[in-house]
Amino acid sequence: MTAGPRMNGAEALVNTLADQGVEVCFANPGTSEMHFLAALENPRMKSVLCLFEGVCTGAADGWYRMKDKPASTLLHLGPGLANGLANIHNAKRASIGMVNIVGEHSASHLKYDPPLTSDIEGLARPLSHWVRRAESARSIAWDTATAVAKASEHPGQIATLILPGDTAWQDAGERVLPVAPVPVRRAPDQARIDEVAKVLRSGEPALLILANKATRGRALELAGRIAAGTGCRLGSQFFTARIERGAGRVPIERIPYAVAPGSAFLKDFKHLITAETREPVAFFAYPDKPSLLKAPGTLVHGLVDADEDSELAFEMLIDALGLRDTAPLIQQRIETPVPQGALNPISIAHAIAAAIPENCIVVDESLTTGRESMGLTMGALPHDLINNMGGSIGYGTPVATGASMACPDRRTFCMVGDGSAMYTIQSLWTQAREQLPVTTIIYANHQYAILKAEYANMGAGTEIGPQAMAMIDIDNPRIDWVAMGTSMGVPSKRVTTAEDFHKALTDSVRADGPVLIEVLLK
Amino acid sequence: MTAGPRMNGAEALVNTLADQGVEVCFANPGTSEMHFLAALENPRMKSVLCLFEGVCTGAADGWYRMKDKPASTLLHLGPGLANGLANIHNAKRASIGMVNIVGEHSASHLKYDPPLTSDIEGLARPLSHWVRRAESARSIAWDTATAVAKASEHPGQIATLILPGDTAWQDAGERVLPVAPVPVRRAPDQARIDEVAKVLRSGEPALLILANKATRGRALELAGRIAAGTGCRLGSQFFTARIERGAGRVPIERIPYAVAPGSAFLKDFKHLITAETREPVAFFAYPDKPSLLKAPGTLVHGLVDADEDSELAFEMLIDALGLRDTAPLIQQRIETPVPQGALNPISIAHAIAAAIPENCIVVDESLTTGRESMGLTMGALPHDLINNMGGSIGYGTPVATGASMACPDRRTFCMVGDGSAMYTIQSLWTQAREQLPVTTIIYANHQYAILKAEYANMGAGTEIGPQAMAMIDIDNPRIDWVAMGTSMGVPSKRVTTAEDFHKALTDSVRADGPVLIEVLLK
Repeated sequence: MTAGPRMNGAEALVNTLADQGVEVCFANPGTSEMHFLAALENPRMKSVLCLFEGVCTGAADGWYRMKDKPASTLLHLGPGLANGLANIHNAKRASIGMVNIVGEHSASHLKYDPPLTSDIEGLARPLSHWVRRAESARSIAWDTATAVAKASEHPGQIATLILPGDTAWQDAGERVLPVAPVPVRRAPDQARIDEVAKVLRSGEPALLILANKATRGRALELAGRIAAGTGCRLGSQFFTARIERGAGRVPIERIPYAVAPGSAFLKDFKHLITAETREPVAFFAYPDKPSLLKAPGTLVHGLVDADEDSELAFEMLIDALGLRDTAPLIQQRIETPVPQGALNPISIAHAIAAAIPENCIVVDESLTTGRESMGLTMGALPHDLINNMGGSIGYGTPVATGASMACPDRRTFCMVGDGSAMYTIQSLWTQAREQLPVTTIIYANHQYAILKAEYANMGAGTEIGPQAMAMIDIDNPRIDWVAMGTSMGVPSKRVTTAEDFHKALTDSVRADGPVLIEVLLK
Repeated sequence: MTAGPRMNGAEALVNTLADQGVEVCFANPGTSEMHFLAALENPRMKSVLCLFEGVCTGAADGWYRMKDKPASTLLHLGPGLANGLANIHNAKRASIGMVNIVGEHSASHLKYDPPLTSDIEGLARPLSHWVRRAESARSIAWDTATAVAKASEHPGQIATLILPGDTAWQDAGERVLPVAPVPVRRAPDQARIDEVAKVLRSGEPALLILANKATRGRALELAGRIAAGTGCRLGSQFFTARIERGAGRVPIERIPYAVAPGSAFLKDFKHLITAETREPVAFFAYPDKPSLLKAPGTLVHGLVDADEDSELAFEMLIDALGLRDTAPLIQQRIETPVPQGALNPISIAHAIAAAIPENCIVVDESLTTGRESMGLTMGALPHDLINNMGGSIGYGTPVATGASMACPDRRTFCMVGDGSAMYTIQSLWTQAREQLPVTTIIYANHQYAILKAEYANMGAGTEIGPQAMAMIDIDNPRIDWVAMGTSMGVPSKRVTTAEDFHKALTDSVRADGPVLIEVLLK
């Protein structure tokens, strides 16, 4: 603890966030947060305005994915938190750390039940790991330090701190520096390692399924050695928080999304070995289809638990297997020709593979279109691929916004279906304001195409009736994405051929700020 | 109970909604709701697609305000519900009845914790009066009937029914018709009436504060007689669910929003008499300002409780006062000249007062701009005025959408600040799809202007620093509202003078579908 100038609760909060390493606040403030706003004048905190709270929480998610440390959000009472919840759900499912600051009425005012009153704890709890109401300005530095420590755990946690107005404006006393937590790296016990080593030495077909921190950096390289040395294959769930992929990286096979191809992919494996994830399950339940994708005789071995360290575990496994000198599997570079002609999943994939520069970030929320394309970009220049693990659409453009804030020297490509893009389209404005190097690619097929397939999958009928079809088709009116992007200050263009798409992508790499490309699919 | 053809759970649900008088479903479906979608093929249910769930719940609110009976929404699991919660909060605060159908995984699938799993009951409870998970297809007709009955109570209630996939697709047995509830009209007891009659006969200054169903129809007319006969004045909270106002209606004075003018307005009253509301409280707490707006010596008399019937209560009061033959106070028509020149609160008010046609609907979410203008439209042609009682911005354009669906023969004017409009701007697309006669008026001042005032009110500082100002100012980039409206198929134009604004308003009255007018304020 160090002494310093006196401050109010809001200043203590922002100072403590900064002291604990939180660099950014994605904010959508209201009246009850005016003192917090004043405290944001702090030069150690970058504040970023978002015009809808789902953009704030999604951007905090994107920030964490690239930085491995939490961002903060500022949300206006219960309804502001509510608007951010869907992307908090997605973040939670992706093991993201995040500190949400939720404004609240002063304690003395709450008893009158003014209009914006709601049960904020009740709204926060289902999707937060940690919820606290700051009780006084004097304790807020500790509350804040605890929130950041909680968010910074592995796996990342959702911490929600409720800030009553009086707590923000009252005297917090002298400045305090709560002690920062020491990060813990936990490894699995040796017995688990030995069991998996035995499985891998057996030569029986095995799939090592990687997730969270196992899909990048040294952990991924170690997994590549294990695969090279034992003949096991490396897989990922269909959706993974972040994968380092492309030429020169260890390649990971993606377990297909739909039940039939997912089961077909898994049926030849005798063993599934999981690292920071669990065995693959169907995204939805369907009448007469299984929930678990593995074949009946397949064994599942939990190698690394969600709160353990894959890098340590893989080191131990490599020692057990004697693979210290084995070179990892490496993805070769595949030079992709610039595609010509019609836009389809293959020409789209080729355009992307040919255009994306080294070290870029790709955020994928393209559902039907991207699902068919992404396999063809394995040999592109090395990049980070980010996917949505929570299934709530509207994650793409906010996450791209936050990822780009975290990595302003790298271009971020955000691939998003037209249906998905509409949920949190306000992201474009923040991208324009911050002049972020984000290329938003809208796949405009004018429908919730995924639902057309799912209607049949669900056995809801062989033909979709006109009322049901009207709930799936978004072509009337057709959204003009060039006008949409332009309305929020993002230079936008429409492409109708593969060569124009490729050119728009490479042009965007040279742009200073955000760009939107509408890929007109029909 | 009548026998009929066999159906699945989803069909039983939609049929029961229709049997119980629910005519419309504002839907944003996902995979788990495909059987519900198929069931929407029912010709007795109008289904309306919204591209964001906050539009669904806001539209259901708007429907109830005009119809006094609940609409249904279809939301996709916990995150879909979460996206709708802010406008559910607003609806709850306005005593709106609403039936939310929330899709959910099948019971057999939940144990695998698939990505979209969340605690739906936990998310629903803080803002619902009634929550139930449908346990089987066989019981769903009763669950649905109970939900509609709950939503239809006075005051309206938020009913949330969770629909697991298997419940939707399994056999519901033969069709059943649960018995519809008989609506109850409760009156206050005679002692309360007599007490208030005594107060009104005393001649001491009294304000009768009207809310919910007391601000329209026969109840309002009766209130007008009481005011005419006793000299008491009629007031409303600053925000009221729906007021019938304009020439020929009983005029109601609006208690100002801010603490100082609100207190000044109330200080001369010895008695506040409340009908379906409580005594006025400040919207927010401010350092060194009171939470209650009345003067210290003022007495508060609760005349009509929220679940009682103002019309019956006012009849009893009129009998007690002997005012059966008194004519009500009536607002005179004020002919407003077409304004010329610069746009300001007065010229804006004059343009609206001169342009709006008889029997139109005005939805007001204009905050700073509208706050100064609306008092000047008291003498316009008779119209319905709808305001936001929950304080969560982003209510205007969805509520206008639902109100217009309920009243397609009347034009709806939606006045909204540019900051507020961005939260749920997807409403415009549904307005275009349904070709609704809605005129959206965007007051583009390029800032959260209300927060500039609140910053000072809060005592957060005399000057707003650059970082804090960046969180209030939305002028960089400037939103192009003409492009925004056009992108979603709404004919849009920008006006910069009062006469052009007036002309755009009157032109819009002759349009078949939606129109957007950007009122450029600086």
